[in-house]
Amino acid sequence: MELIETTLSSEKIFDGRILHIRRDTVRLPDGSDATREVVDHPGGVCVLALDDENRALLVSQFRYPYKEVVREVPAGKLEYGEDPREAAIRELAEETGATAGEFRSLGELYPSPGYCGEIIRMYLARDLTFGETHLDKDEFLNLERIPFGQLVEQVVSGEIKDAKTIAVVLKGKLLLGL
Amino acid sequence: MELIETTLSSEKIFDGRILHIRRDTVRLPDGSDATREVVDHPGGVCVLALDDENRALLVSQFRYPYKEVVREVPAGKLEYGEDPREAAIRELAEETGATAGEFRSLGELYPSPGYCGEIIRMYLARDLTFGETHLDKDEFLNLERIPFGQLVEQVVSGEIKDAKTIAVVLKGKLLLGL
Repeated sequence: MELIETTLSSEKIFDGRILHIRRDTVRLPDGSDATREVVDHPGGVCVLALDDENRALLVSQFRYPYKEVVREVPAGKLEYGEDPREAAIRELAEETGATAGEFRSLGELYPSPGYCGEIIRMYLARDLTFGETHLDKDEFLNLERIPFGQLVEQVVSGEIKDAKTIAVVLKGKLLLGL
Repeated sequence: MELIETTLSSEKIFDGRILHIRRDTVRLPDGSDATREVVDHPGGVCVLALDDENRALLVSQFRYPYKEVVREVPAGKLEYGEDPREAAIRELAEETGATAGEFRSLGELYPSPGYCGEIIRMYLARDLTFGETHLDKDEFLNLERIPFGQLVEQVVSGEIKDAKTIAVVLKGKLLLGL
């Protein structure tokens, strides 16, 4: 079956600090028209960072949409035009103080393909050196080091719910035999 | 560190067909105020469905925000008030025609915790019986059956990018020894 939808028109709905929303009219594969509401996003990065004792760095932060503290790998949004790898190095340093001697890609993640075009690039960081953290002024988080095997157990048991953390931990385990 | 943010006020920004956006003012842990833009979402479900030959059911559909065809496990949004397990059974039947003799939870997923409160409940379905599909009128998709081991390889290699598909496939593999 032909699946492509083509854009007929696009209307800006909301231009916020974080969220940028548009509503497009599209031509469907059967020739009829429909609307598509889209969240535009600059893209993000996340990092599975392992120290010399094979402990992973996790951050806990209050995630307002859930009204709950969520444990995740270090992550952040790209600044517009920023190289993803540079962004991942920056976010890791800002949130955890770590810089990595080894930095490699673990692929891409589409978090919510139904309504948002965000691509999260995933990385593995090892050979870590620790300096000072530099958080944004409205960023509050707690830092934790957890043995990687224990983190895998928490992912498999369902205790870890963040999508990028589940993906990067289990891909790291299977791809690298960690 | 104390991480809780408390809501001071809430403003409705956009009430669309799919997207519902609000902007809240919150009190941060240090006593200062900030705004939080939030996408409200009824929640979703996804299903790793395996046939008697251990082949997984995948759907391919055009994901408009990426302007690309994306391969994913069968999934969908909850209707407001709908039980997640019933929704998963319904979505699997609508998209693939399959009903399952065995249906079990594989946990919860937070796709984009920075700005959206969506929870995706993940399920494993086996002992499948196939009938007719019933797609929504603006839903176009192609159905595929792929050996589960090959699907795991495509997840690990980065060919599969959808977050819920990566999570449910790798959790299924590790939790069930599939």
